Amino acid sequence: MNRETLQRMEAYMVSCMGDSAHDREHVYRVLGLALAIADTEKAADRDLLTAACLLHDVGRAEQLADPRLDHALVGAEKAEAWLLGEGFSPAFAASAAACIRSHRFRRSRPPESIEAKILFDADKLDVCGAIGVARTLQYGGRLGCPLYLREDGAVSDGAEGHSGRGSEKEIAFFQEYHFKLIKLYDRFYTEEGARLARERRAAAESFYESLLREVRASDAYLNRLLPGFGGA
Amino acid sequence: MNRETLQRMEAYMVSCMGDSAHDREHVYRVLGLALAIADTEKAADRDLLTAACLLHDVGRAEQLADPRLDHALVGAEKAEAWLLGEGFSPAFAASAAACIRSHRFRRSRPPESIEAKILFDADKLDVCGAIGVARTLQYGGRLGCPLYLREDGAVSDGAEGHSGRGSEKEIAFFQEYHFKLIKLYDRFYTEEGARLARERRAAAESFYESLLREVRASDAYLNRLLPGFGGA
Repeated sequence: MNRETLQRMEAYMVSCMGDSAHDREHVYRVLGLALAIADTEKAADRDLLTAACLLHDVGRAEQLADPRLDHALVGAEKAEAWLLGEGFSPAFAASAAACIRSHRFRRSRPPESIEAKILFDADKLDVCGAIGVARTLQYGGRLGCPLYLREDGAVSDGAEGHSGRGSEKEIAFFQEYHFKLIKLYDRFYTEEGARLARERRAAAESFYESLLREVRASDAYLNRLLPGFGGA
Repeated sequence: MNRETLQRMEAYMVSCMGDSAHDREHVYRVLGLALAIADTEKAADRDLLTAACLLHDVGRAEQLADPRLDHALVGAEKAEAWLLGEGFSPAFAASAAACIRSHRFRRSRPPESIEAKILFDADKLDVCGAIGVARTLQYGGRLGCPLYLREDGAVSDGAEGHSGRGSEKEIAFFQEYHFKLIKLYDRFYTEEGARLARERRAAAESFYESLLREVRASDAYLNRLLPGFGGA
């Protein structure tokens, strides 16, 4: 793909993201990670992968405006139409759309092509490690989620997770860590994706453990000195 | 202070926090940390310290509604009035108010009594370590702050900090880390506060370094494979 085409594709992606630097930077990270994985997957078509990565979230705004919409489906349609309009072949546009359609749900729409698997892995890598923790905390802050909950007055470590249903506002970081963040690491399609995830795992785990230790330490002082007090 | 008085004080604190679990849990952590520090400061009056900690943020809602107000000043006034209304002595109420008044600005209103110094240290400890990182990221998420900025296309490590003025929305986590988070550790009034801060420091540093490494790694792939592309 020549530079000019690439830049038009980037400009289209940026136009779909509105002014969200978060979403744009996520796309750049996913593209970088996908290209790194592609280095170890010789069968992968790098142009196709680049298009799929750059355009994988172009349906985000639609889903944000109407949560019944699925950004993977909306994005696949938008990307296919844009690629056809730019003169890409119908086969290329359809393959990129298939990658985008399957980047979200492992069970109901699993990725099939190698490019789709790489996109899926790269997108999940951005929820691993310190970046996954940082994004989860920022997202929780936007929704007003607490860091932790209490059970019978004591700080819960979140190991019970949560149902994945119910109001997002009530999801504490400690629960989300157990429900989502620590479950990702053994679910990669590519070997390189799995390796990169393992590299990142310790940063997320050690942050969670430090945070839990700090919170419980101040709570322990409180309980020792004023038994039964606080957070009831 | 008897349990009933303590519970009335807690109920008043909770009523001032509205439904913010964040703010309430911050108060419990500060009280726990303050009592831990007080264990090593024999001169500290634990009742006075407890009142000052529990009530130190009761002026938050007023500052949130009108940013020209200073929650330390509003809170000191509210706390003093409430304590007098509850039958505490004028001297006790005035001392608690003095602690609250001086918990915010080191330069213009430094803490003087040992209880004021302990409250100041305990409040700052809650910005150290993993809890400081978590609170900063959640706060940034609420305001829509980015994780990092770019300079000439490259991810900035934030070492230049920021002016502390300008729109809060433009403050990236990496800059806030250098402007605020790593500067805290050698600014404690009590020895135990400084020791607890040192204990927490590694968690914050290692998270920042992991995050920077991860972000720069994906960016490096992107740049190697598509030179000059992304984030311009």
